[in-house]
Amino acid sequence: MKGLNLMEFITSRENKFVKKISMLNSSAKQRRKMGEFVCEGFRLCSELANDNIAFELLCISDQYPDKYNELVENLSKLARKSIQIPKGLFEKISDTKSPQGVICVCKNDIIKKSHPVKTGKYVALENVSDPSNMGTIIRTAQALGVDGLILSDDCCDVLSPKVIRGSMGMIFRMSFLFVDNMPDYVLELNRCGFATYAGVVSNPDNLLTDFEFLPGSVVLIGNEGNGLTEDTVANSSCRFTIPMRGKCESFNAASAATIIMWELMK
Amino acid sequence: MKGLNLMEFITSRENKFVKKISMLNSSAKQRRKMGEFVCEGFRLCSELANDNIAFELLCISDQYPDKYNELVENLSKLARKSIQIPKGLFEKISDTKSPQGVICVCKNDIIKKSHPVKTGKYVALENVSDPSNMGTIIRTAQALGVDGLILSDDCCDVLSPKVIRGSMGMIFRMSFLFVDNMPDYVLELNRCGFATYAGVVSNPDNLLTDFEFLPGSVVLIGNEGNGLTEDTVANSSCRFTIPMRGKCESFNAASAATIIMWELMK
Repeated sequence: MKGLNLMEFITSRENKFVKKISMLNSSAKQRRKMGEFVCEGFRLCSELANDNIAFELLCISDQYPDKYNELVENLSKLARKSIQIPKGLFEKISDTKSPQGVICVCKNDIIKKSHPVKTGKYVALENVSDPSNMGTIIRTAQALGVDGLILSDDCCDVLSPKVIRGSMGMIFRMSFLFVDNMPDYVLELNRCGFATYAGVVSNPDNLLTDFEFLPGSVVLIGNEGNGLTEDTVANSSCRFTIPMRGKCESFNAASAATIIMWELMK
Repeated sequence: MKGLNLMEFITSRENKFVKKISMLNSSAKQRRKMGEFVCEGFRLCSELANDNIAFELLCISDQYPDKYNELVENLSKLARKSIQIPKGLFEKISDTKSPQGVICVCKNDIIKKSHPVKTGKYVALENVSDPSNMGTIIRTAQALGVDGLILSDDCCDVLSPKVIRGSMGMIFRMSFLFVDNMPDYVLELNRCGFATYAGVVSNPDNLLTDFEFLPGSVVLIGNEGNGLTEDTVANSSCRFTIPMRGKCESFNAASAATIIMWELMK
């Protein structure tokens, strides 16, 4: 295998780099404290290599598949530090059931951040708490061309391994804005001339399909169980609901978000 | 608690009813062989009670929450046999991490089956293998008013606990048709005057949004990784793709199905 002679070989679970990966995988608090997160597996790490994104630490298993040779070589050029560890240890620190043998540790600041502009269309998420839903929403938003996601600070951590996997690497392409008070931020958007649309479960007045979403639109989607907060709904310029067949039926959060984003962007 | 005096109290893991629940939860083969499946938890079992669906076996934990009293009373009237087991044993046979203490065993034939009619709109799934995707698709299909799902026999088992949970009980409302040869069945649909639309990943000719889906439409959605089989695509009367922003991006299978069903039904 190529490039491996440049790598430090580590066998101890107590090594600081190995421990860092474990901690970053398991704790949102540690991710915030260290300002770093873990990106694991062929597909996700390829995104870093393809986009030439420099990162902190490359960790590979001593038994990673030969077909990853080229990727590992490319990644090792982008990494500030590279280590190789035994397969058994890799399996212990991995967040997946069948580890592919490649992990990259990245600084949080590689995630794109930007404020909404009036030529764009945006989705704001308030207290979306399930990492699978968050990952799917990020992936679908990017595929549909949503210009950015605005997240309340009580959403789940977008840098958790599950969100990053679910996003299929789209986490590196999407732009984010994190806001600590969504109701206030909605007022600010209104003042700046954005149209803010609150998705609610039942609204006899406006269906999603009643609106034509122009540039400068922001649609707001709430928590899986409880929806948007009252204040956020009250402060939004419009409210809408997704037309449904029967009142007992419902969508899961990711499906509802998919439909809303599809209508927003088409 | 009410009604419990009518129930047999069982403590042995070797009891035939207890073993049956374990087997039905863990094995698609056993579900097919026995012709039964397991429905677990408050929300799903409530669907049975609300719709007055008779079933084979009610199994409750001896420590189920008091708030389920009314549900358990209603279910015990619909069950051919009712048993109560210790909480610890319930946790062992449950398919969930935090069991709610109520399980119903149902005959497969309570699932609605029907053939497509020309006044309806249908979704055909070929080799959709992920139970989470399948559950979400069933739930979303029902919420949007899809008239029935047509499933190839290499799809995952729709009566697995994960699919049933993901469907949020909509498995009991949706109509199904199971076909052993999807390409041949597509030809049959065409002969009967249905319009068959194959979803493909890249098709420069037709976008999903180019079509107006009339009654008598059947859209076909394929496997998560490989899409529809060549024969199914070839036999379909039209092919379409979902417009996307960039070629590297993609939807997950449930999101793609959500968008397709939304356009089919609106």
